[in-house]
Amino acid sequence: MTESLDSERMASWRAYIEASQRLFIQLEEDLRAETGLTFADYHLLVLLSEAPGQRLRMGELASRLVFLPSRLTYQISSMQRRGLVARQPCPEDRRGSEAVLTAAGLLTLREAAPHHLRSVRTHLMDDLDDAEVACLTRVFERLGRRLRADRDASSTPDNK
Amino acid sequence: MTESLDSERMASWRAYIEASQRLFIQLEEDLRAETGLTFADYHLLVLLSEAPGQRLRMGELASRLVFLPSRLTYQISSMQRRGLVARQPCPEDRRGSEAVLTAAGLLTLREAAPHHLRSVRTHLMDDLDDAEVACLTRVFERLGRRLRADRDASSTPDNK
Repeated sequence: MTESLDSERMASWRAYIEASQRLFIQLEEDLRAETGLTFADYHLLVLLSEAPGQRLRMGELASRLVFLPSRLTYQISSMQRRGLVARQPCPEDRRGSEAVLTAAGLLTLREAAPHHLRSVRTHLMDDLDDAEVACLTRVFERLGRRLRADRDASSTPDNK
Repeated sequence: MTESLDSERMASWRAYIEASQRLFIQLEEDLRAETGLTFADYHLLVLLSEAPGQRLRMGELASRLVFLPSRLTYQISSMQRRGLVARQPCPEDRRGSEAVLTAAGLLTLREAAPHHLRSVRTHLMDDLDDAEVACLTRVFERLGRRLRADRDASSTPDNK
């Protein structure tokens, strides 16, 4: 494999990386201004709200979170202080612990969601036609599956 | 405008945001392991290497950088300490300053680029067919133009 990209693929990569980074900054600014939450707060609230019993083991959260795992402890402590999540020992495994969505966390998420989704529509989704929507779904579902599989293959039970 | 997304657009948005965040983490991990650079270091070196005279005013750098502007001063100082960039007063405007790529910065970029591009190919670009490449280019060039225009419209010369 050569180490370069052909010019179409290089242009595509640069358009994607630059616009995506700008978009994430813009969405985070909107979210902070309207709700006081960061992108990481919001995503963590969504993950917990969708989990059975609104709780997830820290290890599972780390493997599903879309930011660096080293930031997880800091992130959870900060959300604990704001009353959005609680931490509890796992029922089946006393050495492990779980993050649990609090009622205040759920209400905060419900209040924030319409603001955030409006901002996602305004900046991105309303501008896409149906074929573009389908293309993004196909490309990024495939990418997500592949990256998750790579990560699972490279992690042992101990560091999961 | 309602505040929700239809189910196709919601699925597309979630696939995109989750896979992209995972991808950026993976690329940053690869880059750090192979070259010691962060994603922000690398992107700043690329911007400077492409600028006329390999130098950019801090204000222009801030508006073109794809990470939060509040981190720019910290980022530049860190790269100065490592000898990758220098800071100089602007020739035309003594109050302003410029970041200048050093020879060591250029050599570091040239050494890092093949590693980084191989990782971009492996994780993303080699998996896309030509139609998907064209679709990403179209969607993200349009998005980037729109976000840059919004930002330029909302910033005054003073905070640029």
